[in-house]
Amino acid sequence: MDTSAIKVKEDRLRKDLLDLARFGEEPDGGIMRTALSDADLEARRWFQARMREAGLRVHEDAAANIIGRLDPAAGPTDAPCIAVGSHIDAVPHGGRFDGALGICAGLEAIRAIRESGLPIPSPLELLVFTDEEGRHFAGTFGSRAMFNLLIEGEIHRSKGTGKPSMAHSLERMGKDPGRIGEAARSPSEFRAYLELHIEQGPVLESVGAPIGIVEGIVDISRYFIRTKGESGHAGTTPMHMRDDALVKAARIITAVNDAVILAGPDIVGTIGELKVEPGAFNIIPGSVQMSLEIRSMKKAAVQSLHETIQEIVRSVDNARLEPILSKGGVVMDPTIMDTIELSCHEQGIHFHRMGSGAGHDAMTFPPLGIPTGMIFIPCVNGKSHCPDEEIRWEDAAVGAQILADTVIRIASQQMQFNKTR
Amino acid sequence: MDTSAIKVKEDRLRKDLLDLARFGEEPDGGIMRTALSDADLEARRWFQARMREAGLRVHEDAAANIIGRLDPAAGPTDAPCIAVGSHIDAVPHGGRFDGALGICAGLEAIRAIRESGLPIPSPLELLVFTDEEGRHFAGTFGSRAMFNLLIEGEIHRSKGTGKPSMAHSLERMGKDPGRIGEAARSPSEFRAYLELHIEQGPVLESVGAPIGIVEGIVDISRYFIRTKGESGHAGTTPMHMRDDALVKAARIITAVNDAVILAGPDIVGTIGELKVEPGAFNIIPGSVQMSLEIRSMKKAAVQSLHETIQEIVRSVDNARLEPILSKGGVVMDPTIMDTIELSCHEQGIHFHRMGSGAGHDAMTFPPLGIPTGMIFIPCVNGKSHCPDEEIRWEDAAVGAQILADTVIRIASQQMQFNKTR
Repeated sequence: MDTSAIKVKEDRLRKDLLDLARFGEEPDGGIMRTALSDADLEARRWFQARMREAGLRVHEDAAANIIGRLDPAAGPTDAPCIAVGSHIDAVPHGGRFDGALGICAGLEAIRAIRESGLPIPSPLELLVFTDEEGRHFAGTFGSRAMFNLLIEGEIHRSKGTGKPSMAHSLERMGKDPGRIGEAARSPSEFRAYLELHIEQGPVLESVGAPIGIVEGIVDISRYFIRTKGESGHAGTTPMHMRDDALVKAARIITAVNDAVILAGPDIVGTIGELKVEPGAFNIIPGSVQMSLEIRSMKKAAVQSLHETIQEIVRSVDNARLEPILSKGGVVMDPTIMDTIELSCHEQGIHFHRMGSGAGHDAMTFPPLGIPTGMIFIPCVNGKSHCPDEEIRWEDAAVGAQILADTVIRIASQQMQFNKTR
Repeated sequence: MDTSAIKVKEDRLRKDLLDLARFGEEPDGGIMRTALSDADLEARRWFQARMREAGLRVHEDAAANIIGRLDPAAGPTDAPCIAVGSHIDAVPHGGRFDGALGICAGLEAIRAIRESGLPIPSPLELLVFTDEEGRHFAGTFGSRAMFNLLIEGEIHRSKGTGKPSMAHSLERMGKDPGRIGEAARSPSEFRAYLELHIEQGPVLESVGAPIGIVEGIVDISRYFIRTKGESGHAGTTPMHMRDDALVKAARIITAVNDAVILAGPDIVGTIGELKVEPGAFNIIPGSVQMSLEIRSMKKAAVQSLHETIQEIVRSVDNARLEPILSKGGVVMDPTIMDTIELSCHEQGIHFHRMGSGAGHDAMTFPPLGIPTGMIFIPCVNGKSHCPDEEIRWEDAAVGAQILADTVIRIASQQMQFNKTR
């Protein structure tokens, strides 16, 4: 089909992103805009005004998700919608584009679609999800609330003493946490969900592609690895009488890293935290606790690596591997991936198919049977969740263009699309 | 010479040690008696009463050192004294014997000498040094103050916000910190210094000797080792694109530990602290800071190990070895060591010559030309500076006996002794 009438405006998108970055801006260029903080509430008000300007009907649901809707000029208004979305909150001292790109590009895509004069065969929605970053308790709060997927009691829990629960933050903005269930919608209201996001890694930059077509979001397994030794005076205990928990931990770190590399290119493993007890210059380490996180889209690879690491840890005296979390991965809809690819081909845009190593609101939709697609654009030096988070404006515009194009193609492909489901 | 008339009483020593342990006793058997705290001040008053009971003239100097003196019945009272000593303060949550053993055994040794009826040819002193453990700023405060070896301004510094300076603690007990200089004495007032202490390590227990003859106190070198990598998202950065500071640190830990072991039995090296930045489950470590401490009595061994570790660190990209402290070791007087050995032989006590891996007030004396000796007794399982610190009472009595015997032998050997100096 001919979608050449859709013309995303880079300048307009850029201005929105820069305007949005003023909410919670820090002196070093970082962003302090955690979910439902004052800066976030201001940003949300500003963005709702932009959504209304673009012709969307806007409301907030019981979970504080912002929902903007454009009904089709022709066709039934209660037909399943095609939704684009992301989030407006940021991690503490985060960057300007994580989440923000998705909602601003979604807005620009809808504006460009309207301006194209092309018929809009389905309702379109722009979704701004609450607390994707998990300020209150766990991440992807808003999208989970939208499908009744919250954990029991979750809204009353917080990340620690003195930190707010979601119930507290909702009350603070005038909402009744007791009515959180009213945010729930039926999956049948959605024909598809699309999200544009920065890659948050270095792959697209390294292959020189401005567009990543996401094939799925990784399976995440988290563990603690603990080693126990015998603490003692660092001056008075000869080497041959020591049982040093940190030396044992170091052997595990090296062996685990080697094992992850050997496991192949589709899997990553990271020991990101390490705590030594008692932790003093002149005391032999008595115990060490390390975190381990394994991510891959291939469950079999995760299982096999888990077994190898289990063996490594077992081979060390008084060491233990303790699983603490396993979050299954999701796969994106093949027809949507093909549609994004077709759009890239027709526009002459180089793309790269890849997995997402990070979690997103887009994770929530596939298990519900809602066809889902994600588009990545590169971030400079692969940096994200930090003040250095950067993009190239032309990539943002290309991303928004492919997003708009894909929305219209999906809307027009309805028959075809339903066949392949 | 025949010293068989000197009979140390185990029961009396044991009672003193148990009585002293009540000052600052914690429910778990640990001791909370940091220097010049209320518990320490009470313990000091109690101990001064015991010293007076034993016939000593007692006074406190300007640095709060407690000095008990016994003048000879015959001979000049202004002759150089033979001093025995240690400290009464403890590390936070410390044990019952570190320091306490030395002063109680010193007291018991002097009591036994008096009771023996043997002539006492020199003045004897029992010294209780202030803040050996370094509660206020740096350790061995009292012995350094006694010889004008304080660092400029030291008494006005503290270990951190809200922690007392030595000047503050001296004022609190009614002393004028401005007069600290009055604590200074001339090295010529001392013929010898002897200190009995628990070993604080596992060596004596492992060789089955109740007495350790200390040959010297180790040289201590402290460093930071830093590795720098590139932090990044643990899900989105493929293994081959990573520069993980913790993996680099782990290689250094293993290599340094191997190098220390290869350097031989007379040297120890410990990485006791390790901090990962940013330190989160899902972030690749961007930098690591580790502490390294090397202790040995052999300067050449330390220098050679330093060079090996320098090479190890240099072989790792973006790693750095940063020296932060080097405290030269001291050697004990050979004649005093021989005298202690002779005493052990005559009493049929098994002994072991060894270095001290920990620092003590006895470190202060050798650089001043004062002949110094240290006697160790075992501590159970090598544990010290913790509530589990334990000794066998019979070892304490043997230690006090060897101490008393050595004092009298040194006093009687004056001519011989001066020859070998």
